[in-house]
Amino acid sequence: MLKRKNLKIYPIEGIRLSSVCSGMYPKRRYDLSLIEICEGSNISGVFTKNKARAAPVLVSQKNIKSKNLKYLIINAGNANAGTGSDGVKDIKDYCKVLSGETSCNFEDILVFSTGLIGQRIKVENIKKNIPKLIKKMKDDNWESFSKSILTTDTCAKILSERFKIGNEIVTITGVAKGSGMIMPNMATMLSFVATNIKINKKELDKMITKLTEKSFNMITVDGDTSTNDSSILISTGKTKMSYEKLSIENKKKFYSHLESIYIKLAKKIIEDAEGATKFISINVKKIKNKKYGKNIGMSVANSPLVKTALFAEDPNWGRIFSAIGNSDIETRDINNLEIYLGKYLIFKNNALNKKYKESSAIKYLKEKNIDINIVLNNGNEEVTVWTSDLTHKYIKINAEYRS
Amino acid sequence: MLKRKNLKIYPIEGIRLSSVCSGMYPKRRYDLSLIEICEGSNISGVFTKNKARAAPVLVSQKNIKSKNLKYLIINAGNANAGTGSDGVKDIKDYCKVLSGETSCNFEDILVFSTGLIGQRIKVENIKKNIPKLIKKMKDDNWESFSKSILTTDTCAKILSERFKIGNEIVTITGVAKGSGMIMPNMATMLSFVATNIKINKKELDKMITKLTEKSFNMITVDGDTSTNDSSILISTGKTKMSYEKLSIENKKKFYSHLESIYIKLAKKIIEDAEGATKFISINVKKIKNKKYGKNIGMSVANSPLVKTALFAEDPNWGRIFSAIGNSDIETRDINNLEIYLGKYLIFKNNALNKKYKESSAIKYLKEKNIDINIVLNNGNEEVTVWTSDLTHKYIKINAEYRS
Repeated sequence: MLKRKNLKIYPIEGIRLSSVCSGMYPKRRYDLSLIEICEGSNISGVFTKNKARAAPVLVSQKNIKSKNLKYLIINAGNANAGTGSDGVKDIKDYCKVLSGETSCNFEDILVFSTGLIGQRIKVENIKKNIPKLIKKMKDDNWESFSKSILTTDTCAKILSERFKIGNEIVTITGVAKGSGMIMPNMATMLSFVATNIKINKKELDKMITKLTEKSFNMITVDGDTSTNDSSILISTGKTKMSYEKLSIENKKKFYSHLESIYIKLAKKIIEDAEGATKFISINVKKIKNKKYGKNIGMSVANSPLVKTALFAEDPNWGRIFSAIGNSDIETRDINNLEIYLGKYLIFKNNALNKKYKESSAIKYLKEKNIDINIVLNNGNEEVTVWTSDLTHKYIKINAEYRS
Repeated sequence: MLKRKNLKIYPIEGIRLSSVCSGMYPKRRYDLSLIEICEGSNISGVFTKNKARAAPVLVSQKNIKSKNLKYLIINAGNANAGTGSDGVKDIKDYCKVLSGETSCNFEDILVFSTGLIGQRIKVENIKKNIPKLIKKMKDDNWESFSKSILTTDTCAKILSERFKIGNEIVTITGVAKGSGMIMPNMATMLSFVATNIKINKKELDKMITKLTEKSFNMITVDGDTSTNDSSILISTGKTKMSYEKLSIENKKKFYSHLESIYIKLAKKIIEDAEGATKFISINVKKIKNKKYGKNIGMSVANSPLVKTALFAEDPNWGRIFSAIGNSDIETRDINNLEIYLGKYLIFKNNALNKKYKESSAIKYLKEKNIDINIVLNNGNEEVTVWTSDLTHKYIKINAEYRS
């Protein structure tokens, strides 16, 4: 059991992991990992909506339908995207070694890649490391795994929770990566969450869609949806507990823990957004439905003008107002719109709030965590979109390094 | 007649202009202009699709229906946006002085504003300068006018052409402004084009929609559509020539001159895009329809990752590929996709072109004008979207100055 800033990472019964340095990532560090899932596990996944899907996404989207999924193989440094049928051929090539060594079928393997787009993957680097990966497998390698999948990320994103339901100990452990090319549409660029309780496949599929919609699908760094986004949820069923048989209250308890892990992992990506100095929550409140609110929130979150103003700690709310106007908002809703920076009401009744003092907003914007509250006053729903500011460092990272 | 880098600016018979320094713009310079249109002119306009439309847009959209339009009043330094009914009240207040001095109706005035969003406009600054504006009016003040409407722009955008159709001299003169908050949706942040030939209102309306769709609506700096975008086309009818009565050939001749002015003005905005070092043309070719092509082109043009790579002169084509995948492109079209940087074919048949040499692309990207050619191979249409790169200076301009 690993400790990380007062955070314990609990293994999941039924899952073993290993990581090695294959030489694929420009820097020498762990860049290739293998995850083994015990028999009887259920796995659900959601994948990028980008039409230029990477080869590993094409393969995993097919293979996830298999009832006997056994391995997940994940590399960083090369996205194996824009590689067409060669990319799929390469995957089959290195998976053959894994099948041979473990006598599993190709269909029982999921593959994930993250890194540079448009280059053939170094198949040999993977192939020659597979025996080593198999040999090194242990159940408490989650932290090494979380490090092995990073690219422009500056820190690992890993969370673990253990709690009791009745007398049974429930564990959830999750890992994510992502820092740029982030506006997940169905899931973010690689996340893996596992639990030891039994959840049937149908329920698991339903759960992951709901979970990613409230977490990874609500974040944006730069409005660019990656070619490789994949999010995986695993239930090993190694406890006697079955989700299906839980009381409504206990179902809620489990789900709220799981949801909290998803939201925290998504937020960790924004905290580590390329070049970011601010963590911005855009809360769209009193809306008629979540889809409408998300569209408005994303329009603000993806506006370069809003993001540079926040970097400058400048309460230039006119840019927020203009970005709201650029969303699918209906014209009549502009009339009832309220805009707050933190607790400071700026705009109401189609005019600047007379009591608003810019000096208070300037002071507030010096904080790291900023809340933009947009109140529509036409319903009872609410959504939050999380984003970062747009800084010189974002330009530096994306202009000076290839990713 | 003014001269500007070998470029003559021809006045338009029937139009007089004047500009003054009203003290509204932070720096002391011309910032308030008046245009007088002769009786019998026709005027068409298109306005922003942003739902948070500025007060001058709300007023001008109504007043443009008037058959006796006489004045256009334009200020820089304050957008009069996010000001609700107060904003409209302020416009009525200063227009009253203009009506009084010239005995025209409020309905015969169009108003335009550009600058900071969310502040009440300084009505007194405008009111006290109206007599001076009226007194100063001359037909060859186009260049002063083109300077008076600038904000973060670094140069004026003005074009003029004079040519013969039969024995008649046809003149077209046009002015635009814009540098940031640019992804016009119907028209860009202020453009005014005028001609001396007679074009009836119906034809003029049809023309401006077609013209802006091919020019201002095809450019993007930062994906932010402004609250104040307005594009105006004026026909004074001061020649004996009527567009309606021209031969098909001469109609084409006139239209192609007019279209060329629109496209050049739009391109001038991209050349002067905030912080830009590159002028990027994204040519989407062999497409089934223009709307589909524009969507793909805009997805590439608005990707911060593509824009920073171009700033870095890095042929990281994977980012272009990913941005194409993020558009409304159909998955099957990815299979027939070709991507070129200039003349260099990079991607075809779902794979990297084996003959592609990265060194050639690196050399090509050192040029100022970059062509990205995206060939869909599923039709005969073609569109071009123009954009700029994303640079440290864009962040500097938008983080350090309020606009």
